Amino acid sequence: MKITMAHGSGGKSSAELMGDIFGKHFRNQVLDKMEDAAVLSVGGKIACSTDSFVVSPLVFKGGDIGKLCVCGTVNDLLMMGSVPKYLTCGFILEEGLDVEVLDQIVESMARQARAAGVIIVAGDTKVVEGNGGMYINTTGIGEIPEGRYVSSSNCEEGDLIICSGNLGDHHACILSHRMEIENSISSDCAPLNDIVEALYEAGINVKTMRDVTRGGLGTVINEIAESSSVKIELEEESIPVNPEVKGFADILGLDPLYMGNEGKMIAVVPCAQAEAALSAVRATEHGVDARIIGKVKAGEGAYIKTHLGATRRFDVLYGEGLPRIC
Amino acid sequence: MKITMAHGSGGKSSAELMGDIFGKHFRNQVLDKMEDAAVLSVGGKIACSTDSFVVSPLVFKGGDIGKLCVCGTVNDLLMMGSVPKYLTCGFILEEGLDVEVLDQIVESMARQARAAGVIIVAGDTKVVEGNGGMYINTTGIGEIPEGRYVSSSNCEEGDLIICSGNLGDHHACILSHRMEIENSISSDCAPLNDIVEALYEAGINVKTMRDVTRGGLGTVINEIAESSSVKIELEEESIPVNPEVKGFADILGLDPLYMGNEGKMIAVVPCAQAEAALSAVRATEHGVDARIIGKVKAGEGAYIKTHLGATRRFDVLYGEGLPRIC
Repeated sequence: MKITMAHGSGGKSSAELMGDIFGKHFRNQVLDKMEDAAVLSVGGKIACSTDSFVVSPLVFKGGDIGKLCVCGTVNDLLMMGSVPKYLTCGFILEEGLDVEVLDQIVESMARQARAAGVIIVAGDTKVVEGNGGMYINTTGIGEIPEGRYVSSSNCEEGDLIICSGNLGDHHACILSHRMEIENSISSDCAPLNDIVEALYEAGINVKTMRDVTRGGLGTVINEIAESSSVKIELEEESIPVNPEVKGFADILGLDPLYMGNEGKMIAVVPCAQAEAALSAVRATEHGVDARIIGKVKAGEGAYIKTHLGATRRFDVLYGEGLPRIC
Repeated sequence: MKITMAHGSGGKSSAELMGDIFGKHFRNQVLDKMEDAAVLSVGGKIACSTDSFVVSPLVFKGGDIGKLCVCGTVNDLLMMGSVPKYLTCGFILEEGLDVEVLDQIVESMARQARAAGVIIVAGDTKVVEGNGGMYINTTGIGEIPEGRYVSSSNCEEGDLIICSGNLGDHHACILSHRMEIENSISSDCAPLNDIVEALYEAGINVKTMRDVTRGGLGTVINEIAESSSVKIELEEESIPVNPEVKGFADILGLDPLYMGNEGKMIAVVPCAQAEAALSAVRATEHGVDARIIGKVKAGEGAYIKTHLGATRRFDVLYGEGLPRIC
């Protein structure tokens, strides 16, 4: 069965689609009420983040747009030190989309939401003309426990930067699909709850956390240096990259510094706690390849010490990067 | 200037677009922090709703996709008795979109957000191939004051149904644009804060509120009858429709019962408070044409007493309605 414009009518066909696909996978007490808005109980400070996902292809090695959207929004919530609680999802379906593909993607969202500890509390579906593609918006709410204060502007001279793992996997995976190159590169798409909770359980005074998505590490480091009014210096040799991804990037002239990821983060921590923080991250499923990749200094701008020993300044990503990577 | 794929890169061009367009219009203390997620303070019960908007054309008589998305999400929050507080917005821009059009739409969102008392706390932009169109997702958070409990399942025998004004305006407006018919029909797109607050200020025990959007009154009434396990009977002669819209609908064979609206709601109230509620609604800017249109009875299903005196059952909308009406 294919999606038709009638599935976007708000009438009978919409209701059937909701029951058959979304109802089946997302069933929970809040959604089952089918009201205009979900009613939730929250207390104190919350984090709120929104993201639209337009990745092409919809299904790729290591994930799909459904897994991606849950992980992407959950990770944004985690980066503010919050515990992700609720997600909303807005689907824009193109006419001609295979309902089996939709079912698979929604099932993947539901599975990933359970893994990340969030419940999907509200949804919306629209249908547009097109070629059987789809877009998903996810917006998330997390609760920030007392005492956690994370911000891009918190970094201070002496802090160290931990990168949770190999960079460039998602970028190389999506590009391989598009170019129809056979390799074993898989997207790193993952929810980072384990890493963030490990840092707090180890009592680390986490200054800044950022997930390294489109724009890559280079863009994130520049943004942090600017927000905190500091200089950040990375060690090129310390930046973890999977050898297969490195080879792929070298052939295509890509710099892992600007390649997109969907399951990697950096944490900026005080120098005195850096080893404890690194151990905590490495003990998690998603942080086994973590490395200390650089340090915060007085000054301004983002710099990298290359493997030849030279230090050069680098900027945010210019140009298009990889279109529709997330 | 036109939108290019580079505007979706997450790098320099994305940042410039954010600064030039979104930063200019949406400036506020939360957004200015530019973190991965907004940090908000809320207490107790909140309402949360999400909606994607795909309306075509982007700009129409009485509104545009920007006004529409703010009003649509604000109205969903209001329908749960909440006071709308925060909005997130996710933009999916098609390559080739005129930046001036984007600027106009974002300005319209900002103006409407001020009118509805909400602040825009998080955003995201993606760019896809296409023909210069755009989609917007808005997700909203509202605070529910103590003592308010609204639900589609609250209706009881004897309750009366108030409709806040003329039905079908938005539907007829969008269709007129598409068919290039010249008339003076304008979209009813509006935030309904004034009506909801008037009802509560008048001390009305509001049982159920629903905005009457895609799917029309027919679909909403059926959903309420089912949720509350009651029979609802409407009086066709009481249902308010603007004469020009009535004429337009008659020519095209459309039934106002299934036509979409973007600034109309129904409220179900106890019989004893119905006159007070009607007066309260009529005293507001967006409720001047309000009418009592039906009543809740024991039984099940949705019925309408026609102007000929016959009573017939009606169902939810079948088929496609009007594609991309919101």
